[in-house]
Amino acid sequence: MTRPGPDRTTALVTTKAALREARAALPGTVALVPTMGALHDGHLALVARAREVADHVILSDFVNPLQFGPGEDYEAYPRDLDADLAAVDGLVDLVLAPSAEEMYPVLPPTVSVSAGRAGTLLEGAARPGHFDGVVTVVTKLLTLAAPDVAVFGRKDAQQLAILTRLVADLDLPVRIEPVEIQREPSGLARSSRNTYLSDAGRDRALVLSRTITAAREAAPSVGAVLGTLDDALASDEAEWAYALAVDPATLDPITPEHRGEALVVLAARVEGTRLLDAAVVSLTAP
Amino acid sequence: MTRPGPDRTTALVTTKAALREARAALPGTVALVPTMGALHDGHLALVARAREVADHVILSDFVNPLQFGPGEDYEAYPRDLDADLAAVDGLVDLVLAPSAEEMYPVLPPTVSVSAGRAGTLLEGAARPGHFDGVVTVVTKLLTLAAPDVAVFGRKDAQQLAILTRLVADLDLPVRIEPVEIQREPSGLARSSRNTYLSDAGRDRALVLSRTITAAREAAPSVGAVLGTLDDALASDEAEWAYALAVDPATLDPITPEHRGEALVVLAARVEGTRLLDAAVVSLTAP
Repeated sequence: MTRPGPDRTTALVTTKAALREARAALPGTVALVPTMGALHDGHLALVARAREVADHVILSDFVNPLQFGPGEDYEAYPRDLDADLAAVDGLVDLVLAPSAEEMYPVLPPTVSVSAGRAGTLLEGAARPGHFDGVVTVVTKLLTLAAPDVAVFGRKDAQQLAILTRLVADLDLPVRIEPVEIQREPSGLARSSRNTYLSDAGRDRALVLSRTITAAREAAPSVGAVLGTLDDALASDEAEWAYALAVDPATLDPITPEHRGEALVVLAARVEGTRLLDAAVVSLTAP
Repeated sequence: MTRPGPDRTTALVTTKAALREARAALPGTVALVPTMGALHDGHLALVARAREVADHVILSDFVNPLQFGPGEDYEAYPRDLDADLAAVDGLVDLVLAPSAEEMYPVLPPTVSVSAGRAGTLLEGAARPGHFDGVVTVVTKLLTLAAPDVAVFGRKDAQQLAILTRLVADLDLPVRIEPVEIQREPSGLARSSRNTYLSDAGRDRALVLSRTITAAREAAPSVGAVLGTLDDALASDEAEWAYALAVDPATLDPITPEHRGEALVVLAARVEGTRLLDAAVVSLTAP
């Protein structure tokens, strides 16, 4: 990834009204990068892509209460707006950092967006309501920022699949731009959670990226891809939540008869840390 | 109501792409009038208001499958596009009449909009999922037609209340313009269903509009308004579903301690036909 240097003035807006006004003053095309702050290199890769595909970039920095469950870490989620502003200073045109009260004068809102059954599978099985909260806040951010393009990473593969359905199903006038998973030289998918791992844990975590590589190499054979996932589940290097090939539209596991695109999705705990990895594969043979 | 004469060329569009193109070519402000067709004088009152508040008018004519329940009359719902086009010819700029497949390539959609608890009360209690279908199609129509104003009647008071929450909760960039209930000289709220009533039925149906008048006159006293509703429920002229004063935001029944706006909502059967009436009252006294 080429890291571009600062070339623009970054303004902070904290209200919907200020965002609408600042947005209206941006000529040309606009890309939105939705984040929950705590910005790291993965976010900067999204910003770099946003800069490539649009004239202007809006980064939203908002810890969305609606996507946290009762037992989850909404209060403890890291917040450091000053550090975030420093990380993207000169790289984006606008940073939107509203309060929860500004975004949700009534919480929970009366009317919201539902991710449907796709939001109850995979990551959603462990986090009831999470994806409903995601599609609701993304709908609000899209209507407020009115971008031409919205940039999301492929690592949160289920989120990307559901947001692709959101845009299609509600006819939202925006294009979703996916960004490839960023990896360490070892192959490990970059994540802020990797810092929780010991050296031994980082080695054991490589079972995820090795499985992704094996699945890619097993394509276009459905049977071979499913075989790599069975092999992974048999390994005891990680505590698997799931290792599946699913239909990109419904997120249901594919059958051996499936032909076309499939999403390989992995979730596993290593040293107590939940890790994700994913890949899109094209399956055209038994 | 002054009925304006034809003064513009009405174009028919049947696809999302054609709508977006035609919309982009409309200069100035745009009002959307969402309908399910079978246009009557009530719709023309909405069109007349739309013409007053915007430079251009788009009327959508779409029987939304998502708001009909399994036992309801989706297939039998009246459809006569030629008659509808004749009714608004020269009065609106665009008529959007898409097929169900055009609006919902996947039915039901993966991602949809939920009216929440407010959609399960009153009319929603008898029609599970109805208001979820309404907010989903209205969100799609608003994102496709991108109007400055959307026009809805006050007779469907719960729908208007929920759509007001939709726009606020999802930050949709549109203003809702409510249009007062159209009444016959007797006071009976105009409805295409009134044609099902005999002369005796029309007389008995006046208990609804009499109750609305009594509630308006009882305001601003909460106790007096609630008294008029108790009196109505004691009458046997109609088979009441409900006669309530509710909070406009939550649609929960108000308590005697309520102060501020309330929505008086009536639903009753007369000769087997379900009739609605409603009013907004301001309550400032016990």
